[in-house]
Amino acid sequence: MSEIKDKLRMSDKKPKNRIYKPKKISGFPEWLPEVKRAEQKWFDEIRRVFESYGFCPIETPSVEELDAINAKGGDGESDADKEIYVIERLHKQEGDKESRLALHFDQTVPLARYTAQHFNDLVFPFKRYQMQRVWRGERPQAGRFREFYQCDIDVINVDNLPLHFDAEMPAIIWEILSSLPGMENENIQIRISNRKILMGYLQSIGITDNKKIIKITRAIDKLAKQGNQHVIGKDVDKFGGDNNGFILLDDKGNISTPSTRSEIDTEIIENITNFIEVTTVKYNSSDELEDALTNNRHFDTSNQMLKEGIEELAFVMDQLSHLPEGAVVADLSIVRGLDYYTGTVYETVFTDDPSYGSICSGGRYDDLASNYINKKLPGVGISIGLSRLFDRIRLKGNLPLSGISPADILITLPSEEARPTVMEAAQQLRKNGLNVETFHSPAKDKKQFAYAEKKGIRYIWFIPTEGEANHSVKDLTTGDKFSTTPQDWKAK
Amino acid sequence: MSEIKDKLRMSDKKPKNRIYKPKKISGFPEWLPEVKRAEQKWFDEIRRVFESYGFCPIETPSVEELDAINAKGGDGESDADKEIYVIERLHKQEGDKESRLALHFDQTVPLARYTAQHFNDLVFPFKRYQMQRVWRGERPQAGRFREFYQCDIDVINVDNLPLHFDAEMPAIIWEILSSLPGMENENIQIRISNRKILMGYLQSIGITDNKKIIKITRAIDKLAKQGNQHVIGKDVDKFGGDNNGFILLDDKGNISTPSTRSEIDTEIIENITNFIEVTTVKYNSSDELEDALTNNRHFDTSNQMLKEGIEELAFVMDQLSHLPEGAVVADLSIVRGLDYYTGTVYETVFTDDPSYGSICSGGRYDDLASNYINKKLPGVGISIGLSRLFDRIRLKGNLPLSGISPADILITLPSEEARPTVMEAAQQLRKNGLNVETFHSPAKDKKQFAYAEKKGIRYIWFIPTEGEANHSVKDLTTGDKFSTTPQDWKAK
Repeated sequence: MSEIKDKLRMSDKKPKNRIYKPKKISGFPEWLPEVKRAEQKWFDEIRRVFESYGFCPIETPSVEELDAINAKGGDGESDADKEIYVIERLHKQEGDKESRLALHFDQTVPLARYTAQHFNDLVFPFKRYQMQRVWRGERPQAGRFREFYQCDIDVINVDNLPLHFDAEMPAIIWEILSSLPGMENENIQIRISNRKILMGYLQSIGITDNKKIIKITRAIDKLAKQGNQHVIGKDVDKFGGDNNGFILLDDKGNISTPSTRSEIDTEIIENITNFIEVTTVKYNSSDELEDALTNNRHFDTSNQMLKEGIEELAFVMDQLSHLPEGAVVADLSIVRGLDYYTGTVYETVFTDDPSYGSICSGGRYDDLASNYINKKLPGVGISIGLSRLFDRIRLKGNLPLSGISPADILITLPSEEARPTVMEAAQQLRKNGLNVETFHSPAKDKKQFAYAEKKGIRYIWFIPTEGEANHSVKDLTTGDKFSTTPQDWKAK
Repeated sequence: MSEIKDKLRMSDKKPKNRIYKPKKISGFPEWLPEVKRAEQKWFDEIRRVFESYGFCPIETPSVEELDAINAKGGDGESDADKEIYVIERLHKQEGDKESRLALHFDQTVPLARYTAQHFNDLVFPFKRYQMQRVWRGERPQAGRFREFYQCDIDVINVDNLPLHFDAEMPAIIWEILSSLPGMENENIQIRISNRKILMGYLQSIGITDNKKIIKITRAIDKLAKQGNQHVIGKDVDKFGGDNNGFILLDDKGNISTPSTRSEIDTEIIENITNFIEVTTVKYNSSDELEDALTNNRHFDTSNQMLKEGIEELAFVMDQLSHLPEGAVVADLSIVRGLDYYTGTVYETVFTDDPSYGSICSGGRYDDLASNYINKKLPGVGISIGLSRLFDRIRLKGNLPLSGISPADILITLPSEEARPTVMEAAQQLRKNGLNVETFHSPAKDKKQFAYAEKKGIRYIWFIPTEGEANHSVKDLTTGDKFSTTPQDWKAK
């Protein structure tokens, strides 16, 4: 019986009504009104900056055809597959022939599909932003959500995409991250690299096998994520559990391989030792970068791809020289795990909290939508993992909250007879651009004041009492009182 | 072979790459950028009005526990159940013990759950708005979506909720619907009733059985939906297919019953004939309404509930007397199909297109969250079915579109050397509050102009050529050209 009761979460107190006490659904965040208002301000600010650079909004359905998602190809089941949520009607009719639909797990697959599907109706370069929820069915853990917002910008063009856009991305992201309310004291750094540098380097030392290249890319990516710390055998399995090549540094910065790793590791490590060296330095300008790489005797800059990579990265760094020092650095350890990046790559970190991982990542891809359309569509994009970042700032207590009600003013209702005057004043003030609540029923001043305070409404408004000509308004933050009229009181 | 090819949507043109041509997913709308921008303006306007009345935003997860949704009780499977989408991880592990989750099909169930769950952290009266997607797996048909936006406002209080809020809802809705871009020429009417009038009337003529009352309510609701037209036997099955009591009017307005209907129909019809009469009239003011009902010899106004209903409806109408004539009418045929409404009820129609149904509906409920918490929480709310309305205006060609790019200005890039000056001008203009694109690579004026025109950017900006001190800007809509500087040019 107690088991059943527990299952139904029945309450003993109210036997007539069966109460189902709702549970928090792990991984699906939900905010109180004042926090939601703060999140809305973040969205507004991000949108303002995106639009100030001429990016247009799109919104795709929450679902894609499962067949369209799987069309991305690859070697069968990927990491992402494991996280996909499919949807199904609770009472599906037998014989229903419908496409299988899945909630999107990012905004890149939907963007590729959208661009292919609406190709003839789009103007290129297609600069779009997208701020939607995405869903990932991973095991919920601290700071990981199953439903969360991503804020993405991408530029896509036909055949060729000017490098200008690779430099525009970090400029936009810097502007956003340094202006979001509550982020003022965060130490943020955007780290940029260009995958052509690594590709060219590997080419120059004779590594051309694609599988090997992918393993090396992933190894360097994971190496950087460990913060060059000593990693014991158990951690190897944790970080390298997918059995890709893996490299370790001990706490003196020397490369080591545990005996359990396969032969490929040793080969990779030997081959890329020189590259690893340059990944441990961060370059503040294109000059620093070019000096270091061109003077590195292991770097064969007659290799066309290596040369291109350095030039592209130098161009991007040059375009960002107006940003504060340290805001943006060239960092060759940034390669991104995803295989479709082909040029510029970005990550963004809290410099005093490397364990957080990347706030905001992206890069350039040569050919985004090749699974959906027979066109070459290169693009460059970046994505802010908004919900996780927002929650971090919230949990640190740094989020400025500005009250539950968006109202600037509460007009008090002294009596039922006063209602028409109160309503009229409210309508006039709203016409002036103010947000106004009218108290709902006649009540003592004390009660009405308490309501304004609890809801975070700053001004209390009083219609004229008998004999008075003017209205009056009280500022609850200063205690000041003014004589005024609804016509004269303007939005601040 | 052709069947397989068709299934895979393979292209013959590019044999190396398997192309999956994405299909439109029926019932899941997706807009081009310029249409999405117009939709965004609708959201902004709705939010502006909601906030101007002091409603705070909340957002709930896209999913609820299936158990929580089912906790609403009732007689087993409801109409809504058939439309519910459940979500499931594509590669669910065996033995995973997780709550079954379903995408929400409205915002009322989530609101009830939210209010119960966060009860101790909310300030009452809790005035919230919510603009989210909802999902309904119904058969897609013209103008019906499976994924669509609803914009809801509700006020919830503990124990008692002042009638003031019942009058605030239509005022807000009127302000929104008459200000949405593209809605200027629509003839809209908000129709209001109070279910206590019908309940009190039925009480006064001796009908107290709850099942009978529900049948009558539904019958009157459906009757009104038919526009009092003659209905033949076939249509009866169409409209009355759920086997609830059903009433018919012939084309002269006389009540008739086809022989196929059950006994209950006849009883209902006889009993509510007098009520049906008053439902065919719309009352423009509280005076008209009170005159008509008080002077109706069939209406026993000594019945407390009937009297209350008339008084409440008269109060609401009085509070709305500032709206244009015909904007709001009292219409006793409005009863709403959902059983939880207990007082005021609203529907909103296009007066010249009754077949569209209700744009925006709602009402008052005595006890919203009784399934989730042992508190009495009366509320009143209204919901705009946004996506369907937006799509109607779009399809009529009435939606004002303002270009693909949100940029006000495109700065031309005459040469690579000019890039720093161009970037600097852009940053200054953005600081002035303008949205600015810079052309991405040096190109002929003609190409850069064409880009601005195709993207709908109004102003083209030229940095100074050698010997000039000032920048210049050309208005593409008028052809006018101005001499200016980035510092001096302000947002319009």
